[in-house]
Amino acid sequence: MAAKLDIANAPQNGAGETSALAEKHLVQPWPVAGSIGAEARGAIESGDGIYVVDGEGRRLIDGPAGMWCVNVGHRRAELAEVLHDQAMALSYNSPWYTTNQPSAALAERLAAHAPGDLSHVFYTTGGSSAVETALRFMQFLNNVRGRPEKKLIVSRQGGYHGSTYLSASLNGRPRDHDWMDSATDQVAKLACPNPFRRPAGQSEAEFCDRLVEEFRALIEERGPERIGAFIAEPIMASGGVIVPPEGYLRRMRTLCSEHDILFIADEVVTAFGRLGEVFASKAVFGLEPDMITFAKGVTSGYFPLGGVMISSRLLESLRQSNHSDAMFAHGLTYSSHPIGCAVALRNLDILEDGLLDHVKAISGYFQKRLKSLESLPLVGEVRGMGLMACIECVADRVSNNPLTLDLEVGKRIDRHCQELGLLVRPLINMCVMSPPLTISTAQIGDMVAILDASIRRAMDELVREGLWKG
Amino acid sequence: MAAKLDIANAPQNGAGETSALAEKHLVQPWPVAGSIGAEARGAIESGDGIYVVDGEGRRLIDGPAGMWCVNVGHRRAELAEVLHDQAMALSYNSPWYTTNQPSAALAERLAAHAPGDLSHVFYTTGGSSAVETALRFMQFLNNVRGRPEKKLIVSRQGGYHGSTYLSASLNGRPRDHDWMDSATDQVAKLACPNPFRRPAGQSEAEFCDRLVEEFRALIEERGPERIGAFIAEPIMASGGVIVPPEGYLRRMRTLCSEHDILFIADEVVTAFGRLGEVFASKAVFGLEPDMITFAKGVTSGYFPLGGVMISSRLLESLRQSNHSDAMFAHGLTYSSHPIGCAVALRNLDILEDGLLDHVKAISGYFQKRLKSLESLPLVGEVRGMGLMACIECVADRVSNNPLTLDLEVGKRIDRHCQELGLLVRPLINMCVMSPPLTISTAQIGDMVAILDASIRRAMDELVREGLWKG
Repeated sequence: MAAKLDIANAPQNGAGETSALAEKHLVQPWPVAGSIGAEARGAIESGDGIYVVDGEGRRLIDGPAGMWCVNVGHRRAELAEVLHDQAMALSYNSPWYTTNQPSAALAERLAAHAPGDLSHVFYTTGGSSAVETALRFMQFLNNVRGRPEKKLIVSRQGGYHGSTYLSASLNGRPRDHDWMDSATDQVAKLACPNPFRRPAGQSEAEFCDRLVEEFRALIEERGPERIGAFIAEPIMASGGVIVPPEGYLRRMRTLCSEHDILFIADEVVTAFGRLGEVFASKAVFGLEPDMITFAKGVTSGYFPLGGVMISSRLLESLRQSNHSDAMFAHGLTYSSHPIGCAVALRNLDILEDGLLDHVKAISGYFQKRLKSLESLPLVGEVRGMGLMACIECVADRVSNNPLTLDLEVGKRIDRHCQELGLLVRPLINMCVMSPPLTISTAQIGDMVAILDASIRRAMDELVREGLWKG
Repeated sequence: MAAKLDIANAPQNGAGETSALAEKHLVQPWPVAGSIGAEARGAIESGDGIYVVDGEGRRLIDGPAGMWCVNVGHRRAELAEVLHDQAMALSYNSPWYTTNQPSAALAERLAAHAPGDLSHVFYTTGGSSAVETALRFMQFLNNVRGRPEKKLIVSRQGGYHGSTYLSASLNGRPRDHDWMDSATDQVAKLACPNPFRRPAGQSEAEFCDRLVEEFRALIEERGPERIGAFIAEPIMASGGVIVPPEGYLRRMRTLCSEHDILFIADEVVTAFGRLGEVFASKAVFGLEPDMITFAKGVTSGYFPLGGVMISSRLLESLRQSNHSDAMFAHGLTYSSHPIGCAVALRNLDILEDGLLDHVKAISGYFQKRLKSLESLPLVGEVRGMGLMACIECVADRVSNNPLTLDLEVGKRIDRHCQELGLLVRPLINMCVMSPPLTISTAQIGDMVAILDASIRRAMDELVREGLWKG
């Protein structure tokens, strides 16, 4: 007979069973063909604050905060209570015909935080559906405006925007496309604005000029009348925490405005406290986008919720059009979910009641301590902003050439970190850090000490195996 | 200052404020250009069993169970408790690198219920992302198998499969496409298998022959080497509860098998008790698909969760391929969410502990009582199966011509029903009923009495306004 769930007696010693069941019955995200549907991943049993406990009972710092999302930390009683209480009050209503109090109250608070005239929100269930909503809205807008040719979407190498057909087509990491289909004719990609990988001899300001010039040339080549939107993470997250050159985002915004191209800021990672602000576009980068997509931190991962903040000017232009019965045929069963929005409201309370201030106060220390790892010869650069950072490993500090996938440097470091009490997110030759925002200075110290020891172990290992010169 | 959430003091008398805030700050699903971002929809304040309470304090039977999803009913203390308890145990873990107990336990139980060799599940956040997953999996599979041309997706007029770019491209309702972009070159559409709309003089068996023949001709015309998948709701839901002719699904399945075309059964509505079974494909229709997509009822709408059941034979073929490092670059932040899976486990307990039996016992009465509405001259047909049904209104009972959109017959009936204590889901000239599965015989009686009175009021109104002859 199939096992039933019993949370009160969660199988602390059943982690082997969990992994075995998952291996037998799950297809897990990003599998490779050789092990798809037959893959054991380690079980996580519980969470508390910045820590999770794995199947062997080891307590680990949750370095990536789940997947850039557990912003207020694990085991927040306030969020567990709101899940319960809202489920007892109203667990669901159809957004097709009705509305509910938490979604309306949250919309008002999000609008107050959003820059410019981004006063409206369309709710989804996460980042992919938020990006799909923004893109389908752009298509609808241009159809109603009588310019159905203005649809090309411009994204960037290294960017990440989702895992549905169209949102994934924007992704700019090669491995995301090798074996997958994409809407290549609907997307154009610009270079990654990574200052660490700029051509030798180029200053950061010159590098920025080239990036802006590249976009200008693309607009000229394709024609502004064919380009609908530019989408960008203010800081590329999964691409390796790429902080763009100073002024880059504002200048790209200006080009968009000049050519009536919508600027979509994909803040799935950067919003809700990761950079110390509810939305980072304006507050951190001086940017006023036409739309902002968000997810993850909005509920700290306790509930799948995402959305798009939309400019009231764009909505007004639709209301004034000659096609008042043109239907934006778009919406999800779980749009405006009352429980998700109630969780987001409580989560926002926590952020506003001190946690945003904590992030602002502690970010400098977090970045400075991580930066100290650059003294290790395997580390080419430590970069970041707020409470997100990336450690990039290199073949040598002269060429700064990245280490290749087959060396599995990220995975090696992750393995050593796990033995010492830290989960990191390995990305080929990089490790990404984005801990719960509640992390203290002492816990940052623990984290950096474990990283330091683990990178040293990885260096020893690589030298011993003849894979790296040291 | 912005209002903060206080569930304990939910504004029973603040519904006007909720609607006003929503009008000011929300973009709600399926808006029209003329009112987008400036639209008041009525607030729902609370739910209990088969009832919801609206902003004026009126108790209404939730006729569509939210959006085909509140299967075990509103205000289930067991589900509220599991939301709380799982959030305190483990609210989130990254499925990229780790797994959790509820998702593995649920996978085992789903595999036990699924037909044939559908032993694996990939979890998503709802129906759209489940369909995207099934389609992207088909594309990946055929890329790895070295037949990248075999990608065309066959769907049907009247079908509904989601609200992301690719999933929405499969939809077969005209209003879904008028102003929206679609991947038209990737999709071919067959006729709607609606016996009520079959050509005059054709028997249901002949009608079925024609439908199967149409698919056979399409395969011949396009070539089986270019067709990747056929996707079908076993009963079209949003298309108007279309129960296909006897044998249709099995015969379409046979054609798929003969030409190595994957059969995707989209059970987002029909699974988890709506037809008295956990999955309906095999148990109700004798069908063994290659994939089954599900969502909605899996958590009774308390949490956004969906997924795809996948054939182990397909996974095995990938593991045996010559491209063991080919990556299925697909996965959502909230795939395998521990809280969602814990809710689904408890929801499945409720279904197995008597509710599926209740549906089987009461469905005949539900259908028979609704069928009695065919005595009203506005009603052309009442059709359905299990606890889903559709009342279709017609211009007259000789031609059976449907009433046009501008008459708003569905909306008129809905308005009268709401006054009398029932929410229905209006669809142009149709009203769809799919109440919570806990509905009793007495409550079915109430529902049908309200529908009867409301349709009579609508008829009087239409005659009075000179819109219908009566």
